[in-house]
Amino acid sequence: MGIGDDAAIINLPLNSKAQLVVASDTLVEEVHFPGDASAYQVAQRALCVNLSDMAAMGAAPRWFTLALTLPQGKANEQWLKGFSDGLSEIAIAYNCALIGGDTTAGPLAITITMLGEVPLGEGLVRSGAANGDRVYVTGILGDGAAGLLAARKDKSLNCIDNTVSERLLLSFYKPHPKINIGLKIRALASACIDISDGLVADLGHICKSSGVDASVHTSRLPIHPDLEANFQGQCVDWALFGGDDYQLCFTVPAEHYPMVDDWILLGELDATWIGSIIPCSDNSPAVLVDGVKSQERERGFDHFDQ
Amino acid sequence: MGIGDDAAIINLPLNSKAQLVVASDTLVEEVHFPGDASAYQVAQRALCVNLSDMAAMGAAPRWFTLALTLPQGKANEQWLKGFSDGLSEIAIAYNCALIGGDTTAGPLAITITMLGEVPLGEGLVRSGAANGDRVYVTGILGDGAAGLLAARKDKSLNCIDNTVSERLLLSFYKPHPKINIGLKIRALASACIDISDGLVADLGHICKSSGVDASVHTSRLPIHPDLEANFQGQCVDWALFGGDDYQLCFTVPAEHYPMVDDWILLGELDATWIGSIIPCSDNSPAVLVDGVKSQERERGFDHFDQ
Repeated sequence: MGIGDDAAIINLPLNSKAQLVVASDTLVEEVHFPGDASAYQVAQRALCVNLSDMAAMGAAPRWFTLALTLPQGKANEQWLKGFSDGLSEIAIAYNCALIGGDTTAGPLAITITMLGEVPLGEGLVRSGAANGDRVYVTGILGDGAAGLLAARKDKSLNCIDNTVSERLLLSFYKPHPKINIGLKIRALASACIDISDGLVADLGHICKSSGVDASVHTSRLPIHPDLEANFQGQCVDWALFGGDDYQLCFTVPAEHYPMVDDWILLGELDATWIGSIIPCSDNSPAVLVDGVKSQERERGFDHFDQ
Repeated sequence: MGIGDDAAIINLPLNSKAQLVVASDTLVEEVHFPGDASAYQVAQRALCVNLSDMAAMGAAPRWFTLALTLPQGKANEQWLKGFSDGLSEIAIAYNCALIGGDTTAGPLAITITMLGEVPLGEGLVRSGAANGDRVYVTGILGDGAAGLLAARKDKSLNCIDNTVSERLLLSFYKPHPKINIGLKIRALASACIDISDGLVADLGHICKSSGVDASVHTSRLPIHPDLEANFQGQCVDWALFGGDDYQLCFTVPAEHYPMVDDWILLGELDATWIGSIIPCSDNSPAVLVDGVKSQERERGFDHFDQ
């Protein structure tokens, strides 16, 4: 399986019972992170973002290559040690190994290609959602957008106290890839995606791939109390359209609701039921927010618009 | 097998009889190609350079991901069509498929991660050269360095006629990856590398990995008559230290000389015997050029030195 999902799935040669999962993501300075980010922070974010693609596929991460483009001013031991520390901390935590890559001179950019594996046919894709499935998201939404503002030292965040801004900064530079959740749900979810471009945009990708609409309810969106307290006017928009959350959005057919709800109730799965898959009403599969389909708002984050 | 060779070799899970080969290479504008290169040229070079790593491993290329970072001015249909045409022409010629990637805004850079396969244990590595092995190179050397000058429209090339400069430009933008040679020699070569940083630097990598010296003779170096005619003073240096040739340098144990020499004689293998592997004389494995070991000259091309 090639282009069009979070990663590619490859049938291994010679009748192996596993499939390889491959994804590449690039982070460019001033586009994906501010110029004053530390090497340690940049490395962690680069690896976590790529691991999130594995989570979205239900894959176990195994190996990665690193293509590091570095300006002269950063090609020094101190910068490289910070980068290496950040990278190896995450690689150890998620049990994946750096297996190669390239180092070149140029404007700071990091491309990681992550390889993982899934049992044959068990990879989670975007195209399996069907009418009647429930839509769930993991964790909380909106922290990614607020975290980006924190990373940019945006004035709108001056009102919050240090504990909150530290949590937001950490969510930006070290988003927690939901690998274990991907592995847990892969046998029963019908579709899955990671929320990197915003819930509406990414759930919209599931809708398009599956030929269905999705109806979500803003009242159900899981948002951190800190955001609700400090950013009442914006936090729902951040949760819907903000991007950078790196949570999973997945759909579950009726036969598996009880299992998923049991897991949630027992604290074994950190996820929230936010809506349902419905038939597509107008040949243009998309997300309805509180009953309203808004083609315009669902584009999500587009770096070329910056 | 991880870092330290042209690519990583991965044992496939569940007792598969093939191994996956993975390599990443980045090309940055103004570092690896001039700013006036066409999208078509850049795409071809990016893919060929990565394919050359597969050739060096004796691997059959299968799949690749593309991480394309593009400035606003190039994010248009015309540029992308040129890029896509160049990429697909090479992908078809070498039977490998684009399976995913990422597109981001930023200074022009291309990272390709190439995946290939080799039968279990048959991958060519740098560490197998032994005393008495012969050293061979494929094709001709020095065209890469001259091609870089041609791409930069360097004045020193004003003396040559158009046919020659066109050939050099083509060798720069569309280096011919020696995939078939890699496949042909993988059963009998003891070590192999592609010459991207210059013969002495890359053969030096084989020496270091294998704990041996290599002795090469400049009189044996295969250099195109055009270069010998026009650049008598420089062409040997280009062949030794110039880089960008993307030929293979490989070593062959005594038991396999006859086969290799037969292939060369019959025109089935475009390669030249340029020297031999000898015991390391001083605990610092390196290349001797016409009997002289020159640690200083063997660094090869270092982009950070530019």
